[in-house]
Order: sequence, then C-alpha cells, then structure tokens
Amino acid sequence: MTEVNRQFVLVKRPQGLPGPECIEYREGPVPEPGDGEIVVRNLYLSLDPAIRGWMDEGEGYRDPIALGAVVDGVTLGRVVKTRNPDYAEGDLVTGIHGWADYTLSPGSLNSTRVPADPPFPLTAYLGVVGPTGLTAYFGLLDVGKPQAGETVLVSAAAGAVGSIVGQIAVLSGCRAVGLAGTEAKCRWIVDELGFDAAIDYKREGDHLSEAIAKACPQGVDVYFENVGGPVLQAALDNLNVGARIPFCGAISGYNAEAPVPGPTNLWQLLVKRARFEGFLIADFAPRFGEGMEKLSAWVAEGKLRYAEDIVDGLEQAPQAFLKLFDGSHSGKLIVRIAEDA
Amino acid sequence: MTEVNRQFVLVKRPQGLPGPECIEYREGPVPEPGDGEIVVRNLYLSLDPAIRGWMDEGEGYRDPIALGAVVDGVTLGRVVKTRNPDYAEGDLVTGIHGWADYTLSPGSLNSTRVPADPPFPLTAYLGVVGPTGLTAYFGLLDVGKPQAGETVLVSAAAGAVGSIVGQIAVLSGCRAVGLAGTEAKCRWIVDELGFDAAIDYKREGDHLSEAIAKACPQGVDVYFENVGGPVLQAALDNLNVGARIPFCGAISGYNAEAPVPGPTNLWQLLVKRARFEGFLIADFAPRFGEGMEKLSAWVAEGKLRYAEDIVDGLEQAPQAFLKLFDGSHSGKLIVRIAEDA
Repeated sequence: MTEVNRQFVLVKRPQGLPGPECIEYREGPVPEPGDGEIVVRNLYLSLDPAIRGWMDEGEGYRDPIALGAVVDGVTLGRVVKTRNPDYAEGDLVTGIHGWADYTLSPGSLNSTRVPADPPFPLTAYLGVVGPTGLTAYFGLLDVGKPQAGETVLVSAAAGAVGSIVGQIAVLSGCRAVGLAGTEAKCRWIVDELGFDAAIDYKREGDHLSEAIAKACPQGVDVYFENVGGPVLQAALDNLNVGARIPFCGAISGYNAEAPVPGPTNLWQLLVKRARFEGFLIADFAPRFGEGMEKLSAWVAEGKLRYAEDIVDGLEQAPQAFLKLFDGSHSGKLIVRIAEDA
Repeated sequence: MTEVNRQFVLVKRPQGLPGPECIEYREGPVPEPGDGEIVVRNLYLSLDPAIRGWMDEGEGYRDPIALGAVVDGVTLGRVVKTRNPDYAEGDLVTGIHGWADYTLSPGSLNSTRVPADPPFPLTAYLGVVGPTGLTAYFGLLDVGKPQAGETVLVSAAAGAVGSIVGQIAVLSGCRAVGLAGTEAKCRWIVDELGFDAAIDYKREGDHLSEAIAKACPQGVDVYFENVGGPVLQAALDNLNVGARIPFCGAISGYNAEAPVPGPTNLWQLLVKRARFEGFLIADFAPRFGEGMEKLSAWVAEGKLRYAEDIVDGLEQAPQAFLKLFDGSHSGKLIVRIAEDA
C-alpha cells in the first residue's frame, strides 16, 4: 500500500474542455480518521459527464467543486481505517470520494456500504448496478413511464446510461431505438444489447429528423435526453401526442464556451402535449434498494449487458475524462486506481 | 338581417404579421342548410393568438386554414336555419365558425349549444366561461397543479388567458405574480384583478430575471407560459425544485419570419427537476362542463373578473387581430359582428 496520497485538484475553472491548466496533480499524506470518520482506499473511479458541470461556477444542482479541492467523482473503495462504529476495516463502500488514492469520509450517506461478494465484478457497482444503472432505471421507468408497445428513442445510446436505458426499454416491451456516433457503436447496441434499431447521428447530419422518422415508424413516445443540441431538435420533430422526455443530461453543451441556444422547435411540446422533465438520481435515493435489486437480478440473469472501458492508473484520470466528450469510448468509463488487496 | 354573407378569406400564408395581402374580404350568399345541417348567424367573433398559427403550413396541432377558405375563429351565434333535429331556430351556439356573417355547420361538436340566459353578458361565452377561461382553468389546475402557498408566475398576465390564470391562482391560495408590458396593465392586474404583484417586463429589459427573483422571494413553483423568448428564459432562472410549466402558447414567436432559438438555460429544467408540459384545451373537452360550471359560479360570485375589448363590425377583424401582437389591448379581444336580434 503506497504511503503517498495521490490526488487531482481543481485549480482553475475550465472554459471548454478541462485541460492540464485546470487539473493539477498533487501528493499528500494518507489521512488519519478523526472521531466518527473513516479512511477509504479508492480502488475504482467512475468518470461521468456530470463531473464537467460540477467544475463550473453556479447554475448547478450541487455546489461547484471548490478551487483547490480534489476533483469530485464517485469511487468504489475499501475502508482501511475506521473510527466509525458503522464501518469495519475492509468494508466495500461507494461515494463521491474524488480523484484520489485515499479519502477521509464521515461515513453515512457519503460512503455507502455495498455487498462484498456480488455475482458480478466489483466495477459494476460504479456502473450498471450503481449510479449509472439507477439513473437509467428511474429516469426511464419513473419519469419516462414507457408502456409496452411504445417506442423509446435514446440519445448517447452507446454511453453508460443510454446503453442501459435501451435494454430496460426492451425488457419493458418497447421498441428501443438508439442514437450513437459511429457505425461500430450502432452495431454494438443492436447486435450485442438488443436495441431494435440504431441511427448514426453523425452520418445523418442534417437529415437526422428524417432518419428518426424512418427508424420510428410509429413515432417517439419516450425520448431519453442525454445530449441536447441538434439531436434534441430532431427528436422533438418526431414526438407522438403525449410523449415524455426524461431530461438526464445535455453533454453537447457541457464544454461550450458561450451560452448554447435551445431548439427552435420547443413548440412541438405544445403541438404534441408532451412533457419535458428534468430529474436527478439523488432524488430517488429512498428507492435505490429497489433499483439495485432489480438491476442486479437482470445482470445475473444475463438480461442486462454492459461494457466497461477501464483505464489503468489514477494518473490517467484527467486524460481519460476527455474521452467522455470526444465519443471515443463505449460503455462505462472507469479508472482503476489500485488492485483490490 | 343582411342578405349578404360577408367573409374574410385567407388568400396567402403570412410571413410575419398577416397584412391585407393575406386576408381578403369577399361577399357571398347566405348558405342554405342541407340535410342535418344548420346555419349560424354569427354575433361575436373571438380573436385569439392561436389563429395566427392556424394560418401557417405544417407543424401545427390542427390542419392549417386552407388557402381560399374563410379564416377560422370561434364565434358565438344563433341558429337561424336548421335541418338538424338537435337544434332549434334561435339556439345560441359557439364553435369555430370563422370570420363571417353566416356559417353552414353540421352541428354536433362544431356548434356547441350554450344556455340562453346566463347571469353574465353573452360575450363571456367566448372568454371567461368559454375557451379562454377553460384554457386557464385546466392549464393551471390540471397541468400546473398549484398547491396553496406556492408562487404562480404568469406571462401575458393582462391577456385574456393570463388574467384568468392569475385570479384562479389566487383563488387556489397561491401568490400570483403577473408579467405584463405596460405600467397600466401591471396596475390593472394588481388593483382590479387581485394579483399579488406585477412586473413590467418591457421596463425591466435585461434585468427581468432579477425582477422576477424580487417579486417571487420564495421562487417560482408554477410558470404559466404564454410567450416564449426572453421572458421564458428569465422565468427558467427562477424555478423552484419540482416546478411545473404549463405550456399554453409562445406568442413572441408567432409572427417570426425565421426560426427562433429556444432559451439557453433549458438546463434549469434538470437542475430544478422541473416539468415543461404542453397542453391543448381540446384534450379536456370531456370535462368542459365541470370547468364552465366552476368558472360561471366564480363570475357570478364576483370572484373572477374579466375585461373585454369589443371592436365593432366584422370589417374591423383583420385590423383588430393585429392588436393581439402589439400589446395594445387588455383582456379578451372580441369583434361584434351583429346585434343580437
């Protein structure tokens, strides 16, 4: 076990993509727990688009990462020191522990214990049976309310959340159509994940609206919104009466350096009596148990497949984070910080 | 009774405001009813922003007005000839009978009978106890779901719909804050209609967001959306968590000659887990009876006040219609086509 606590610290708020001038490498001592505290040895770090939003000042749904503070991010780790009676040494925990080897935590909701011997790799706790899967599960089922026989259109469909949304749509008896940015991703979500159809939105360019119409001959009943921009515009063109749009993210705008105008056809929400509704997974915390149980069962039964892109070494985190925004990964992006002891 | 049937016909789809080149005056014979039909003598014509949308090709929630056809519009009239057993001569009816002296109608939903001796002027059937009032009633209560103690922000608050929305909000125990475009309108909605506060959005200009924050110290729980553009943007800045936005119209864009970009801060819907939801009053038709009963009672009890801007003479309709878009009227805009016999 290294005695140095490697960390990445936010030193400058990014304009556009966060470059090396924004995220600084530092080393510090391994923390010692105070009364009621624990120290977590982080094993895996989840890289999520939302982190980019947390780097910005204001307008967010949580306090921005302070300048000089460790970059926030969900990790899976083990308790290595404890002065909190609710935790034993060796407990597996997840929480927003940040881009660091070791994290001092007050426990409780900041570090949630997870079962030690799951029927799947531990990394699934950061993805398909963790925040990613829960986002897909509650966003699609509770906000989108898909009915069997309906059509569910998913943006960023080869991404961590989108790939699960489409599979849950299929498990709910819906037609799942995915939007992805390469032919390989399109093939993957159809051939491996069981989406009914896929659209390469980059290839379609200005004809995306027509391509959606073709892939969704019965129209779109649920559009799972991850991206914003021209994709949202094209989706709005194809809504059915009474459509629902769970609003999970808008990655196309996260690194914009100027305000990005919204779609010109919001009017379609009125024409189609449609509902555009934002949600945050934290609001569903009281039901996480239900969601994890369902997701775990689907994974165990082979009904829910997932891909991981695991990058080795905490030192790779800043560079790997950029892959979220250039479309060069599929599935859940995770940094392996350390081998599990 | 004149024997000429004066009509206004759409001859060209407008770019921007509909000028004389788009709406042509014609005279024709008074129609004769075929089997099952009635002829309605229109007395009052309701001028509504939605008519502007019906003049455009495509993208609408109903078929556009055909070129060469009488301009659509809701009227109140009397049946003067009937070959339909459900209607007697003299019956009062409302329906989308158009900008004309006389209308041939198949009856049924096209011409809804209304009580002959209401405890209010007949014109109220076109406004506060007609489509306008029903739009406010169902849009606010069913889509907006205001709870007592919440803050309801209303755009176009001195307009026909908005002025009723704010009063129903107050009747529901909410704080009602109205956005209007002149100081006189602001005074009217506060002093006469009982809104808790009003904001002159033209005077506030670029500081509208701050003005809303000041007038809504507890934030905005329901934003009743009639206008779009910078007003929508400023409202989105001030949403509370769980806010609802009934989307009734977007008058700021109706005469735009190019696509109007949406707000740059749609992201606020996610941050605030808010719901932006379009509705059409026609979808509530099965419950119109309930709504009219409630609205009539409020009017009769003096709890719901309304203003009408009555323009004399069908020939004034095209010019009067433009008043909807330059902010030069308050309350419900109606053309008196003929004196009731």
